[in-house]
Amino acid sequence: MKVLITGGAGFLGQRLARELLARGELKGPDGQPQKITELVLLDVVAASGFSDSRVRAEVGDIAERSVLERVIDERTSVIFHLAAIVSGQAEADFELGMRINLDASRLLLETCRLRGHRPRVVFTSSVAVYGGDMPDVVRNDTALNPQSSYGTQKAIAELLLNDYTRRGFVDGRVLRLPTISVRPGKPNAAASSFASGIIREPLNGEAAVCPVTGGTRLWLLSPRQAIACLIAGLELDAAALGHQRALNLPGISVSVDEMVAALREVAGEAVVKRIQWQPDPRIEKIVGSWPGRWDTTRAEQLGLSGEKSFADVIRSYIEDEHIQPV
Amino acid sequence: MKVLITGGAGFLGQRLARELLARGELKGPDGQPQKITELVLLDVVAASGFSDSRVRAEVGDIAERSVLERVIDERTSVIFHLAAIVSGQAEADFELGMRINLDASRLLLETCRLRGHRPRVVFTSSVAVYGGDMPDVVRNDTALNPQSSYGTQKAIAELLLNDYTRRGFVDGRVLRLPTISVRPGKPNAAASSFASGIIREPLNGEAAVCPVTGGTRLWLLSPRQAIACLIAGLELDAAALGHQRALNLPGISVSVDEMVAALREVAGEAVVKRIQWQPDPRIEKIVGSWPGRWDTTRAEQLGLSGEKSFADVIRSYIEDEHIQPV
Ligand SMILES: NC(=O)c1ccc[n+]([C@@H]2O[C@H](COP(=O)([O-])OP(=O)(O)OC[C@H]3O[C@@H](n4cnc5c(N)ncnc54)[C@H](O)[C@@H]3O)[C@@H](O)[C@H]2O)c1
Ligand SMILES: NC(=O)c1ccc[n+]([C@@H]2O[C@H](COP(=O)([O-])OP(=O)(O)OC[C@H]3O[C@@H](n4cnc5c(N)ncnc54)[C@H](O)[C@@H]3O)[C@@H](O)[C@H]2O)c1
Repeated sequence: MKVLITGGAGFLGQRLARELLARGELKGPDGQPQKITELVLLDVVAASGFSDSRVRAEVGDIAERSVLERVIDERTSVIFHLAAIVSGQAEADFELGMRINLDASRLLLETCRLRGHRPRVVFTSSVAVYGGDMPDVVRNDTALNPQSSYGTQKAIAELLLNDYTRRGFVDGRVLRLPTISVRPGKPNAAASSFASGIIREPLNGEAAVCPVTGGTRLWLLSPRQAIACLIAGLELDAAALGHQRALNLPGISVSVDEMVAALREVAGEAVVKRIQWQPDPRIEKIVGSWPGRWDTTRAEQLGLSGEKSFADVIRSYIEDEHIQPV
Repeated sequence: MKVLITGGAGFLGQRLARELLARGELKGPDGQPQKITELVLLDVVAASGFSDSRVRAEVGDIAERSVLERVIDERTSVIFHLAAIVSGQAEADFELGMRINLDASRLLLETCRLRGHRPRVVFTSSVAVYGGDMPDVVRNDTALNPQSSYGTQKAIAELLLNDYTRRGFVDGRVLRLPTISVRPGKPNAAASSFASGIIREPLNGEAAVCPVTGGTRLWLLSPRQAIACLIAGLELDAAALGHQRALNLPGISVSVDEMVAALREVAGEAVVKRIQWQPDPRIEKIVGSWPGRWDTTRAEQLGLSGEKSFADVIRSYIEDEHIQPV
């Protein structure tokens, strides 16, 4: 089985690659395990740190047809399409967001359609497809109403994936990810970057700026569970999914104040003191438009699961990243 | 005021043009009436039958950038974007539907964005954006879940129009039209073509084929009210619309049996006898996936209205088209 990860040098892409290599196999469309013989990591930057012979790191722009034609052939039976321009950047640079989040997603589906081999395609969507007047708990049948260009581009890619699936061009699965926290490394241009920063930096002895008020509600999932859900989503039986290929992944609904309280519980007051509160209306507006909770009955019935508490999320971060809180 | 109608030689385009010429003016963004000085009708076929000096018929493919650049300039302050590939044809020819319903709609919005003059844009969407598991009465916040490529392309264009509006590139209004009936002329490639044919042909002394069962429920609006709603939609105050630019237009919910009963009431049993029942699973499937009724509270609060009964719709058809039932 040949597997492609677009955005394979990114945060989730790298972790997903590592997990796939460790597992060594994935369920085929018939539910039977198949060996992963080749894992292609496509990104604009070279995916590094893999010495495994199954890995092929490909550098290229996913918005270019020739690049997609190079990495997708008739044997590419599984595609995790993660490459994206994150929310803050897609809002700041409209054309770039349209090109990568929309045009490239469509080009990927087109490449599959023209190859005609009907691969399984997992697409990562986001809380940002929701917005405006929402029920307190977003349902599976709540209308998508994105309030950002990123959310719009994700919602459009979802619609395309559904139609390409209905027509039998691909076997698609859209996983709407909660905000992923705690994300290791550096802050990025996502509007939700602080949702990791206010935990990660203080644990590391550094100051962190929180650009939203404590009452702001977030819908979160750990990287560990996100990767588990991506794989479980790919392995779901197509028949169980039916015609609606989008799935709201499980998460935990927490206010920023509750996140801080969990950090206090796990690491103490001295760590919490490193958070500086500097509301930024631009961030507040984008993040405040996302749902704080959604109904995850469907995902859970299909066997996908998240964490129970945010303190658990912080603990799994400390464990996975070998952090020594200072 | 310069007004553009794309699909200006089409069924609704022609009627809209006639109505605009008769009115002679439209409300400006400030609510004050402005004279229509130029009316551009863009279509792949020449709009004919207009001897009015305000009319300019332009022949061109809306999917070509140069065509849009020719018909949209800084003075084009109102655009009715009606050009489309209808449902049946978009399902049969995937690439054509994508090119006209999606790419051309986006190109139109892009042309406006690059001109920078923020025109009001009315876009005609459809019942086909809904589908799958739906509540009996579709709400404004019911998720779009198209079960056809046409519906998918319309849903995507809606999302684009919302985002272009939010960003201030255009001032957009999406009007989700019920199926328009009774449509004069010949059958077309729309899956809903029969919804006019089973009234029009029998009134004209001809046989008509009904490809769905009598229990099939449709959501209908007359051409007369559709045109009134397109104009009212354009004239709506932007502030009253807020961030959600899509509006489910009023209609009447009727089963095909009820349509036939209304035809009997208006024109008698001999006319009804001309309907031949030949279920076609392909049509049945597409039409059966559309909602039979939706909540129109929002449209009505904004002052848009439809008919009260389908018999009224038949009578307005007979009147508008000067039909002599035979
Ligand atoms: N992390 C989150 O909180 C979160 C939440 C919801 C959804 N998602 C989605 O999950 C996916 C992965 O997110 P992530 O956190 O790993 O993001 P990331 O930014 O770390 O990874 C995205 C990768 O895509 C690559 N990329 C960007 N443009 C490209 C191009 N033109 N060609 C090839 N590669 C390109 C980037 O170089 C990057 O490595 C994205 O689709 C994102 O929108 C993430
Ligand atoms: N009539 C209905 O029941 C109904 C219902 C819902 C929505 N709508 C929508 O209302 C709009 C108008 O519908 P209509 O019934 O008048 O359809 P129509 O087919 O009569 O008119 C569409 C026009 O678009 C033109 N066109 C197609 N491709 C073009 C291109 N590449 N460049 C320029 N022009 C092109 C066609 O030549 C045609 O004249 C469409 O967007 C349709 O999807 C109609």
